[in-house]
Amino acid sequence: MKPNFTLRLRVFNLNCWGIPFLSKHRADRVKRLGDFLNMESFDLALLEEVWSEQDFQYLRQKLLPTYPAAHYFRSGIIGSGLCVFSKHPIQEFTQHVFTLNGYPYMLHAEYNRQKDIYLAHRVAQAWELAQFIHHTSKKADVVLLCGDLNLHPKDLGCRLLKEWTGLHDAYLETRDFKGSEEGCTMVPKNCYVKHQELGPFPLGIRIDYILYKAVSGLYISCKTFKTTTGHDPYSGPPFSDHEALMATLCVRHSPPQHNPSPTHGPAESSPLTSVLREAWAEVDQGMAQAHWWATMAGYAVGLGLLLLALLCALAAGGWMREAALLLWTPSIGLVLGAGAFYLFHVQEAKGLCKTRAELQHVLGRAREAQDLGSESQPALLLGQQERDRAEEQ
Amino acid sequence: MKPNFTLRLRVFNLNCWGIPFLSKHRADRVKRLGDFLNMESFDLALLEEVWSEQDFQYLRQKLLPTYPAAHYFRSGIIGSGLCVFSKHPIQEFTQHVFTLNGYPYMLHAEYNRQKDIYLAHRVAQAWELAQFIHHTSKKADVVLLCGDLNLHPKDLGCRLLKEWTGLHDAYLETRDFKGSEEGCTMVPKNCYVKHQELGPFPLGIRIDYILYKAVSGLYISCKTFKTTTGHDPYSGPPFSDHEALMATLCVRHSPPQHNPSPTHGPAESSPLTSVLREAWAEVDQGMAQAHWWATMAGYAVGLGLLLLALLCALAAGGWMREAALLLWTPSIGLVLGAGAFYLFHVQEAKGLCKTRAELQHVLGRAREAQDLGSESQPALLLGQQERDRAEEQ
Repeated sequence: MKPNFTLRLRVFNLNCWGIPFLSKHRADRVKRLGDFLNMESFDLALLEEVWSEQDFQYLRQKLLPTYPAAHYFRSGIIGSGLCVFSKHPIQEFTQHVFTLNGYPYMLHAEYNRQKDIYLAHRVAQAWELAQFIHHTSKKADVVLLCGDLNLHPKDLGCRLLKEWTGLHDAYLETRDFKGSEEGCTMVPKNCYVKHQELGPFPLGIRIDYILYKAVSGLYISCKTFKTTTGHDPYSGPPFSDHEALMATLCVRHSPPQHNPSPTHGPAESSPLTSVLREAWAEVDQGMAQAHWWATMAGYAVGLGLLLLALLCALAAGGWMREAALLLWTPSIGLVLGAGAFYLFHVQEAKGLCKTRAELQHVLGRAREAQDLGSESQPALLLGQQERDRAEEQ
Repeated sequence: MKPNFTLRLRVFNLNCWGIPFLSKHRADRVKRLGDFLNMESFDLALLEEVWSEQDFQYLRQKLLPTYPAAHYFRSGIIGSGLCVFSKHPIQEFTQHVFTLNGYPYMLHAEYNRQKDIYLAHRVAQAWELAQFIHHTSKKADVVLLCGDLNLHPKDLGCRLLKEWTGLHDAYLETRDFKGSEEGCTMVPKNCYVKHQELGPFPLGIRIDYILYKAVSGLYISCKTFKTTTGHDPYSGPPFSDHEALMATLCVRHSPPQHNPSPTHGPAESSPLTSVLREAWAEVDQGMAQAHWWATMAGYAVGLGLLLLALLCALAAGGWMREAALLLWTPSIGLVLGAGAFYLFHVQEAKGLCKTRAELQHVLGRAREAQDLGSESQPALLLGQQERDRAEEQ
């Protein structure tokens, strides 16, 4: 980028709610979304929950003249549902699959917040995402993180992500916002949103984000930020049960006066340290729970095996032969089911253990740096983190 | 690092063959390995196949005075078996789990090379590893990749990894080599190596590596490289069924005369392009196979369901009730087994599809760059890759 040149980047993001057979008016919504994206000609359009590859291919064809570059991220059995359309060439793409992805035997997403059984997984995912950004963006110009994070702004995962990466929230940073109240991205006015889904937040929730930072001598700011408000931009039916986000970002070379010194206090009391500690505690508790479930499942496997042995003895002895044969299938089912449950929770415990070890290492280094006392504030490690952040401002 | 200063880095690597209950003389070997590592005081000791966390904890305690920093990488159900001991503080660690890891219903490792059913997985893993290095090392000083790669030097995966990352092979680069013939890391002289394991390579195979590159204005070279030769360094029984690798690496600031211009020819005929094409073809073939297996498994599920329905009808009608009850369990087993097989191969196909898309994108960009004709040789993209490599030399 030339000095004194400002790059304007228009970004669109939407969770498309594109579940085949389940999401209402999918074909019509995808068609209208394509028309809108073509007309607006954003630099980047980032879509989530495009579960059907046919929908992607439809959009790919439709958007080709305006967005010559596109990519659909395939993964796992059902895919990731993620795709990106770009007016500019895509230099490279890569993909990272989270280690922990909730419990396959329960339905996932935004549920009971009072007793969020996924909390440890959410925190582990937020940390993994933050670490992915941390490790892959060191020589980047700009980092954009957009999407439905399934996290409210004050949630531990969201705070951890922002504190560790230094990403800024377009909604909070912009001076020109137009859209739904409080920037909510699921609102009761949207005809696809069921009121009970919003639970204790009848006015709406904000779980979709455009986050950004500049890294190497650049400065980025959000000029305008818009959301749809329960219907499409022409006051027609909505594109999805989520609201669309549209941001205009400006990237330019960082003038020296934009490098403020870090404002954090000593490491021990900085928001980063405290959020790292909170995350550590949450993951630690999740780990204990995973161990408990693995132990219980282990007992169930043992019980199932005992039952099977008993049934074999009964059938061989000729006693209650038919009953024994009838019970044979459920007993095998018990052993296999409990075995799968056991393996799942052992893996969960290992995944959480990995996250805890990383958090512990970061906290430990902060403590060591403080004990050294060579730098009064901020401590060495967090100082580095904050220098990185300062560089990017 | 100060100018004119040379950093000497002594690195040790060993696949420890530490499978609880299965690997012979494990406790004795781990003890002697610990003694050796303490005496030699390397900068870094990198161990693979330390499957028992107790073994790691034993080494951790024993090596604490010489190697104050250590980390054990936990993952999946059985763990990764990887650990690292360092004389110097570990600033950060992170971990990446491969998307594809062979077929869980078959035993993994180094097998029939004439008909390597894992070839597509190996290539996908090599690409994933190369991409991990590519994306995470952009601001690194030095990259070291050590370990048992389960790949021979001329194998597609090994060539792809080296070409895409620009990593150098310590064995090939050093002028001072002492050790087994041809640098082999599994040799017939080792009492733990069964001759049939070496298959068509009775003199030994080289599958363990120390690879390195310098990135930002530094220069790295391998001063000495040693392997053990079928016994431990004191001519006692070996530490493992693999040979240990020991390298002394020198890192210094790159003098300008060490920046040779890239020697590759035009992109279309460069070794990188040809290895990328070869990898693409292999992954493509693996994908077709995965689809075929998924289809077959889908038919088996259908068959199992038909059988179950038939058995239910028989049992309900009272015909051959006992036989029907007896066949109930194997039929359910068939449905579940084929279902699992189906899901596995669908996931495999998606994983290979992801790799193929990445390879295709890289090849496509090389072609575009050539079509543009703006740079005669090397083409834009590969030129960048080669500039990165030149910088590091």
